[in-house]
Amino acid sequence: MNRNVRAERLRQQIAFLTEVDKLKTVLRRTPLTDSSRRENSAEHSWHLIVAALVLREYADAGCDLLRTLELMAVHDLVEIDAGDTFAYDVDGLKDKTVRELAAADRIFSLLPEEQGRYFRGLWDEFEAQVTNESRFANALDRFQPLLQNACSEGGSWRIKPLTRAQVLERMAPVETACPGLWPTVIEVVDRFCASGLLV
Amino acid sequence: MNRNVRAERLRQQIAFLTEVDKLKTVLRRTPLTDSSRRENSAEHSWHLIVAALVLREYADAGCDLLRTLELMAVHDLVEIDAGDTFAYDVDGLKDKTVRELAAADRIFSLLPEEQGRYFRGLWDEFEAQVTNESRFANALDRFQPLLQNACSEGGSWRIKPLTRAQVLERMAPVETACPGLWPTVIEVVDRFCASGLLV
Repeated sequence: MNRNVRAERLRQQIAFLTEVDKLKTVLRRTPLTDSSRRENSAEHSWHLIVAALVLREYADAGCDLLRTLELMAVHDLVEIDAGDTFAYDVDGLKDKTVRELAAADRIFSLLPEEQGRYFRGLWDEFEAQVTNESRFANALDRFQPLLQNACSEGGSWRIKPLTRAQVLERMAPVETACPGLWPTVIEVVDRFCASGLLV
Repeated sequence: MNRNVRAERLRQQIAFLTEVDKLKTVLRRTPLTDSSRRENSAEHSWHLIVAALVLREYADAGCDLLRTLELMAVHDLVEIDAGDTFAYDVDGLKDKTVRELAAADRIFSLLPEEQGRYFRGLWDEFEAQVTNESRFANALDRFQPLLQNACSEGGSWRIKPLTRAQVLERMAPVETACPGLWPTVIEVVDRFCASGLLV
């Protein structure tokens, strides 16, 4: 690679790294465990990565941990344009796919072309939910907010009236990909049913 | 592993994952690129991981990317107790090691014993700066804040008067581990010398 091509490549890589800083300003509905503020999607992505390292024994035996971490690192980047869509927001979910596809087109094209395709491939893989790695990543993407809600008096479950069935449907990927974590999901959900927060 | 042992193990893992949520409340001196607020150490750790994925071609050929990401994910956890020590805070740096060692003892011991040893090993490896992976991780831990400062009119360099030599000394790990990124460091530093922010 000659010097000019390399310099242009690095310029594009730095432009991408600067752009993705904006994920730190995208707020999710989940509060921090101390309830002091809402969590943003960048720190959430980091927390998922730590969760994957800690709970790797709950992944399918053939799961590639590096690929899982790559998926987790990029899975929310489209929210820079599309915003975080609350899991129980029926209206917001209607056009979520369209908004996120447009965001993916723009954001990953900031990278050098072949690298942009690689990163887009990570995002597509997470969305498709076919591979072991994307299923493990998605399971923790559901499980981690449950833990945060459990620590913050229900957290995002307090926003609108929810039923036990709605929450369990949202958590279903945990049962499929990490059955060993499912009893914990049931325990937490049952606790908030008993308290009356979930119906 | 019998059921009770497994349940206790998961309880410890969840206690650790809950505890590390606090890293989201540890503020660094570096602002976000839009200067809207200071960056926290959790979202910073995520940004480093994305930087490693984007700039992996600048790592030494023998560098294990998974290990690098593991180091990045845990390298700042001790700040939950020890706080973030500003790189140019001479007094704070005096007892930084003592404070961080005590924090590592406490935080990693929340995990099941053998897993705590594994995570402590990651933190020790990052600190020792002997392996390729820890050197690449550390180089990006210096390079990323430089990019953020470049976007935010000097960012953390505005806090106290700094010389070109002080900043270049801080950035030296970039030259060693990622020589291909060094011209960018010089370019940014020279720009802020020309503007008068660095002396």
